[in-house]
Amino acid sequence: MAESITLVARTGKALRLAQGQEIRVVNTHGRQVVDTWAFAAGDMAEFMSMEHSRVHMGRVNPVQGSVLLSNRRRAMLTIAEDTSGGVHDTLLAACDVHRYRMLGATGYHRNCTDNLAEALAELSLVPPETPSPLNLFQNSAIHPGGELEIVPPIAPPGSHVTLRAEMDLVIVFSACPQDMAPTNGADMMPKDAELQIA
Amino acid sequence: MAESITLVARTGKALRLAQGQEIRVVNTHGRQVVDTWAFAAGDMAEFMSMEHSRVHMGRVNPVQGSVLLSNRRRAMLTIAEDTSGGVHDTLLAACDVHRYRMLGATGYHRNCTDNLAEALAELSLVPPETPSPLNLFQNSAIHPGGELEIVPPIAPPGSHVTLRAEMDLVIVFSACPQDMAPTNGADMMPKDAELQIA
Repeated sequence: MAESITLVARTGKALRLAQGQEIRVVNTHGRQVVDTWAFAAGDMAEFMSMEHSRVHMGRVNPVQGSVLLSNRRRAMLTIAEDTSGGVHDTLLAACDVHRYRMLGATGYHRNCTDNLAEALAELSLVPPETPSPLNLFQNSAIHPGGELEIVPPIAPPGSHVTLRAEMDLVIVFSACPQDMAPTNGADMMPKDAELQIA
Repeated sequence: MAESITLVARTGKALRLAQGQEIRVVNTHGRQVVDTWAFAAGDMAEFMSMEHSRVHMGRVNPVQGSVLLSNRRRAMLTIAEDTSGGVHDTLLAACDVHRYRMLGATGYHRNCTDNLAEALAELSLVPPETPSPLNLFQNSAIHPGGELEIVPPIAPPGSHVTLRAEMDLVIVFSACPQDMAPTNGADMMPKDAELQIA
């Protein structure tokens, strides 16, 4: 019996997963980026690290079968299945109030950094900092000269990524609220996603 | 009158820089990688962040003129001058005991993560974690399929990078002790570098 949770546009959600448990992240409407973090159960100082994962994968971006490591190089998550087209980002920081201010936003703008903290607070947890996220479905084009460009995602509506927990952990998702860059598609409109736990 | 400090092979060094001050990192023997971190003076929780810098630079790797940001998106360091050929890495985690154990090392192997902590301890400072370093002179080839390959650096003997502090900060360098991969050249032999403060 699968539990299904709507990850509401512009918000975050934290969940506990036991070792071996799988969670499916469905891109319900397509082209929505979902920032993803993982923390070891019982020790928030050990968290999924993009820089350690890149060394281990020998890749810039994870593909089906890739194993993502913690900052202590222990396996945390495996990309068990990917029907999204396989385009994900490990290079870009979570958006935050500073990023939106620099883009010209006035007043408060929802952001993935605050979503991480808010979602963890619902489990009475505090992040030690904001680790660099696994940006599921995010399309960052790396050009031959080293230029990095944020372009619309390719993930079709209803496509998904299934993540398997390789240790007991807390996983956190944020449906990215970016509406001032084409992060979430050319229409720059953040949308819901769906989380399905087996 | 420039002060010159030898960054001894396999070790680290932490220094305080005032806003506007410049430091030259000389690749004395060529092809030696120097892991580099920066922390805001008086607040170790604010540190140079590769993931925030990549967004700001719109690049994977910094070039002359690039500004590297903190995790609060404030300017920390500018690449004021670069005579090394302009190949540096922002993608790979600092080496650590886990990395060397996975490569087959037995017993303790010096590493950049411990060098960071040791160097800061000389200033009675403690890093909040090990931020992803700016790996000066490191040559990480990104192939079109997303594969990442560690290949020998191109920085010639005597070439240098000059970094300008954009705020009062603590800067930390580690002459990478990697001798089990071609990080520091095909001879896999860690070497000294030189730090020159104007």
